[in-house]
Amino acid sequence: MYSQNPSQDGPSGRLTLPIQTGLDDRVRELLDRLGADAVRNSDGTELPELVNELAVKVYQTYFVGRGDQAWADAHPEQRTRIYLMSERTPALAEGPLEIDLMARWFDQQVRPDSDCDIARWWQVIDRSLDKPLPAEAWELLEDGHTVRVLEPVPGHVYTVDFLAEQVWDPTQMYNYLTNGWQDDPTRIKESPYDVRHPQTWQHVREALAQWLADHPRVDVVRFTTFFYHFTLVYGPDAKERFVDWFGYSASVSVEAMEAFEQEMGYPLTAEDFVDEGYYNSPFRIPSKAFKDWIAFQHRFVTDRVAQLVEQVHAEGKEAMMFLGDNWIGTEPYGPLFERTGLDAVVGSVGSAATCRMISDIPGVKYTEGRLLPYFFPDVFHPGGDPVAEANSSWLAARRAIVRSPLDRIGYGGYLSLALEHPDFVERMEQIVEEFRALHERSGGTRPQTAGFRVGILNSWGKLRSWQTHMVAHALWYRQAYSYLGVLEALAGLPFDVDFLSFDDLADGVPEGIGVLVNVGSLGCAFSGGPAWEDPRLCATVRRFVADGGGLLGIGDPSGWPMGGTTFQLADVLGVDREMGWGLSTNRPLPPVAPHFITADLDGSLDVGEGTANIVCLDPKAEVLDSHQGSVRAAAHRYGNGAAVYLAGLPYSHQNSRLLHRALYWAAGREQDFGQWLAEDPRVEVAHYPQGDLLVMNNAQEPVETTVHLGDGSPWKVTLPPGGLEWLRAAPGQTDQGRPQ
Amino acid sequence: MYSQNPSQDGPSGRLTLPIQTGLDDRVRELLDRLGADAVRNSDGTELPELVNELAVKVYQTYFVGRGDQAWADAHPEQRTRIYLMSERTPALAEGPLEIDLMARWFDQQVRPDSDCDIARWWQVIDRSLDKPLPAEAWELLEDGHTVRVLEPVPGHVYTVDFLAEQVWDPTQMYNYLTNGWQDDPTRIKESPYDVRHPQTWQHVREALAQWLADHPRVDVVRFTTFFYHFTLVYGPDAKERFVDWFGYSASVSVEAMEAFEQEMGYPLTAEDFVDEGYYNSPFRIPSKAFKDWIAFQHRFVTDRVAQLVEQVHAEGKEAMMFLGDNWIGTEPYGPLFERTGLDAVVGSVGSAATCRMISDIPGVKYTEGRLLPYFFPDVFHPGGDPVAEANSSWLAARRAIVRSPLDRIGYGGYLSLALEHPDFVERMEQIVEEFRALHERSGGTRPQTAGFRVGILNSWGKLRSWQTHMVAHALWYRQAYSYLGVLEALAGLPFDVDFLSFDDLADGVPEGIGVLVNVGSLGCAFSGGPAWEDPRLCATVRRFVADGGGLLGIGDPSGWPMGGTTFQLADVLGVDREMGWGLSTNRPLPPVAPHFITADLDGSLDVGEGTANIVCLDPKAEVLDSHQGSVRAAAHRYGNGAAVYLAGLPYSHQNSRLLHRALYWAAGREQDFGQWLAEDPRVEVAHYPQGDLLVMNNAQEPVETTVHLGDGSPWKVTLPPGGLEWLRAAPGQTDQGRPQ
Repeated sequence: MYSQNPSQDGPSGRLTLPIQTGLDDRVRELLDRLGADAVRNSDGTELPELVNELAVKVYQTYFVGRGDQAWADAHPEQRTRIYLMSERTPALAEGPLEIDLMARWFDQQVRPDSDCDIARWWQVIDRSLDKPLPAEAWELLEDGHTVRVLEPVPGHVYTVDFLAEQVWDPTQMYNYLTNGWQDDPTRIKESPYDVRHPQTWQHVREALAQWLADHPRVDVVRFTTFFYHFTLVYGPDAKERFVDWFGYSASVSVEAMEAFEQEMGYPLTAEDFVDEGYYNSPFRIPSKAFKDWIAFQHRFVTDRVAQLVEQVHAEGKEAMMFLGDNWIGTEPYGPLFERTGLDAVVGSVGSAATCRMISDIPGVKYTEGRLLPYFFPDVFHPGGDPVAEANSSWLAARRAIVRSPLDRIGYGGYLSLALEHPDFVERMEQIVEEFRALHERSGGTRPQTAGFRVGILNSWGKLRSWQTHMVAHALWYRQAYSYLGVLEALAGLPFDVDFLSFDDLADGVPEGIGVLVNVGSLGCAFSGGPAWEDPRLCATVRRFVADGGGLLGIGDPSGWPMGGTTFQLADVLGVDREMGWGLSTNRPLPPVAPHFITADLDGSLDVGEGTANIVCLDPKAEVLDSHQGSVRAAAHRYGNGAAVYLAGLPYSHQNSRLLHRALYWAAGREQDFGQWLAEDPRVEVAHYPQGDLLVMNNAQEPVETTVHLGDGSPWKVTLPPGGLEWLRAAPGQTDQGRPQ
Repeated sequence: MYSQNPSQDGPSGRLTLPIQTGLDDRVRELLDRLGADAVRNSDGTELPELVNELAVKVYQTYFVGRGDQAWADAHPEQRTRIYLMSERTPALAEGPLEIDLMARWFDQQVRPDSDCDIARWWQVIDRSLDKPLPAEAWELLEDGHTVRVLEPVPGHVYTVDFLAEQVWDPTQMYNYLTNGWQDDPTRIKESPYDVRHPQTWQHVREALAQWLADHPRVDVVRFTTFFYHFTLVYGPDAKERFVDWFGYSASVSVEAMEAFEQEMGYPLTAEDFVDEGYYNSPFRIPSKAFKDWIAFQHRFVTDRVAQLVEQVHAEGKEAMMFLGDNWIGTEPYGPLFERTGLDAVVGSVGSAATCRMISDIPGVKYTEGRLLPYFFPDVFHPGGDPVAEANSSWLAARRAIVRSPLDRIGYGGYLSLALEHPDFVERMEQIVEEFRALHERSGGTRPQTAGFRVGILNSWGKLRSWQTHMVAHALWYRQAYSYLGVLEALAGLPFDVDFLSFDDLADGVPEGIGVLVNVGSLGCAFSGGPAWEDPRLCATVRRFVADGGGLLGIGDPSGWPMGGTTFQLADVLGVDREMGWGLSTNRPLPPVAPHFITADLDGSLDVGEGTANIVCLDPKAEVLDSHQGSVRAAAHRYGNGAAVYLAGLPYSHQNSRLLHRALYWAAGREQDFGQWLAEDPRVEVAHYPQGDLLVMNNAQEPVETTVHLGDGSPWKVTLPPGGLEWLRAAPGQTDQGRPQ
């Protein structure tokens, strides 16, 4: 059985490997070589008998809300539901208008739920008037998927918000379709069921109890995951049509909505979820109803999770949550997450930001990052280069791990595939050693950070810590990457970061914040949109900066065209976005001047998609970069403080350094910059309280650079591609480290 | 004296030349050579004695609202006024806030007018609350240009809207500063005065009467211009700070505003003019007050102009208006312009669109275009290339002249300079001949147009015919050229164009319109912004298209993010603009397919600044061009009609052809395209009702192409750079012309 206090500082441990049947000798050898102290199965693999002999922890995946198809089929009314919208359909002539609800959805995944009171739970909306029709004005045809609007206004556009039954669990559907399981007669299509129904809840608890009893060798129950899947719906072509990794659309049921009304005192409508077809994407300004729903489901989900965790603990096992899949409502940064009693969270590490999203979760005993690449045939095939992916993934994750250590790392997939790539196994060994050394050398401490905190200010605040500007996990989106880069850079920079909502500024900027950061595109939840209509918010930030604070705006900071400016804090930023109404005013672009912030820039600034038409409002603003007449970076002193504007900041070594400098400059701390710093932006330095110094080359080429120590003295280092070096402080010294 | 019916069809005439003293023989020779039938003075030149001998019409400039400095100085209270706004000034600490009104304005040009009741006519506005302060809450300091806000809210931003006296006429200031007249002791700085004051009006009438009496040889009084200058204000650096060629800010006076209140029944405020600092730029959605003010001043100005014109006519002379400078309120496309009785309008031709702006003016006896280049030293110097400028200017103007003939052309500046460039004189001679031939060959008819009308739909409609997307006359603006290109192309294409306001669609799309065009950036008056909140407007356009009409949208057509789409007619266009909230929906970009619209495109489509993040909403939309995942051109059938989307359309030969095709396709008339058309887009064809054909090479290189005649038969032509060729129809034939 699992030991409560496994050694976490020795030369082994902290590593989870996937294992499978038929490779016993090689598994033994590899576990030994890599010092793995835990093993797991993967989707589609079973744990071998071997685990009974191994002196390691055993993880096994467990599905709460799907997998028992007999139950799902016996209780179709207890399957999970989802809110969907039909296509926007114009009425082009007189007479009834028919709308096929399923025209753009996948009928094997979802099916209109007409067993509920559709007059109450569905809505037909005249989008031209932004008004729902009375129930008498439309009818559902017998086919169950066509709505007839009886007397539409010609020229108006109509939609149907409808509740649908989820026939097929999205993740299982994805695996099934991706892996071609239709040819495998042992595979079925799994339907999810909803623990909101007391019967299903009872069944889930009993099933878990039985499973726990049946799996004595399992140490860690790896919940994959709980009750509600993030929103993932396919189109009729069986391809992804809508994805929102934070979406709550699939967490609905009549029972839950009725409970909500009872608890919150007001009723919900279909449109509260459908949200004009945006389905409350986190980029949308969150409505009160949606925020209330999140809180409501967070209460429910964490309460139910806590009960499952109790069952697990009662069997002497640990409960681990996979961050993803059916994770909706758990809200790892929500107020009740700690109460679940979960021991651990494991998640896939696709970047530094997603790594911090896992490693910063408060209230769990440990976190585990599943590194890339998965041992899947897409990378592990003859001619594939898994080492390259391992390198880029590790270099991205390592920056975050240094600042906020994951407790463990692991891999997933088919071990057999990895074993066919000895060079990859070798690289994996180095990575694991590096990871362990970080723990060993840091001795449980974190590297020092700037003497001021950085506050990311948006509509979501803490709830979406390290989760901003993401549609789906670590996927690249053209309209997001130029903002996500800020998070990615911060995830590995020596700053303490707070995620603040606009409400958090109601009584002023929280103590300790040196620089507020507002980043995002116009009108989205991350820049804030109408939040900036509140004069108190603007006044709070203005006074904060005027009193010596800093503001860093990226994209459309405080953007909400109103009262003569696009950026409501244009006076603070010194620049504004020209929407096209102010062309009559001549606002000459000052020449670009050298500046502290851009001092390490080699070549031109990359602002990604950028934000065009940025004009200089205050001639005293210093333009740091411009392109085709538009400001791309500016610095502006304001009262006793300062503001920095950037048109975008995709992640790169250079941009990370630029952000580092911008934050110091905005905080009025530029004189403190340059200690514990490498001249080359590809190299980052972590300085630990006990005096140790870690110097990391984030680049995949060798770098020779000079590191400036605490007293400013230079230390020349040469680092191999992706290499790192430790500089040990002499005993008793904290700031006087010298090369060994 | 001037003959009422000068020959306008002969080998001479239709030409006005600037003349000056000291060149009598050469003037005679040149007038003869070029066949000029009118002469004029220019700014800063006097007409020579010679004019008394010449058998030509004589124009002389006349200034109504400035020039009599003794009068201006004696009646400072009757000088024209202007509304200005101070800088946006934040209150960063407790205690009074002082705002220097003149911090960013030129004190030699404007001066705060504190003689009026400033409590009534000035406004101090808390821009954070969007509310004016009561008059007790602020005071004007003794210096006359500093306002003290007594108890500002810390963190709020304040502005002062103030009435200012116009000390210096903007055009005279421009000439003075540009030409260095400060070194010329004979020059004074001229102040404008306002005929709204009965005394000044009386004086202006008397002065004109005297001037008419003093200038018997003048045939045409060239008013330059009337009463109110377009908005042009300099900054403290004596450089242009604000310019709006359509601006009414400098048409205000306490007397006028009081008269407005009496007439319209509601009071105006300073903010009605200051408009958050945008000063009612034509890109802004026009407010009711501003539209009422335009109508009010249009009534006043046209009434007063009519009286001056009567005086001119009474002396047997013609009255000509220069379109520009103090032209505000005349509104050549306004309902009362014809009532002025003006004989002619003359304006500078900087492009095809500005040419049409002049030549299309209804209700005058003739129009005259002043061609470029001016005979000024910036072009006419040793080594200068006036021929190149003459060529590009003429080729741009010629396209418009062919479609809607100017009656006359002319030149301006110093004839002595032109005479030093014999190659230019030669080119001028060719141009003048070409111009006369257009009149002669067309016999007063216009070339045939498509069988459907094109309706440009925006907030302004007819009032801003050919005047959209312009800040200052024909100047290039990065945020405008990609839309202005549509007008520039249309100005020379065979379409009848109507300028429609949204109100004009109240009872449906006017009869005869084949395609509606909505072009502009998001939220501006030209795309329409909140106009699209009106479901009736959207329904009208939807039904128009569904019934077989066409819609062409460029930039952000019907753009106003609301109810689930950015473009309110996204269903019609088949595409939408993704603001950043809808990233969760996968909208695959179809591959670009060949299409009728892009058939003549050689290489990639140039959409100028374009509009990014355009997604395909309807999979049935045909994508004609895309870039970095964004649609740049699309075609979409809708009901019995069709819509075309373009991300931008800067003017070029190719884009003009693309527009030509797009309009035919949207109108469902593609089968009629290709008659009277050259295969090469650089060549345009005008087909006259009597059968004559004009084939023009718009390019500055030779072009060999095939022209398709009315029966589809090909005609190979080779045209020299900028060349044209006429194809005369055989007598009685209209569609059977063959090369001579």
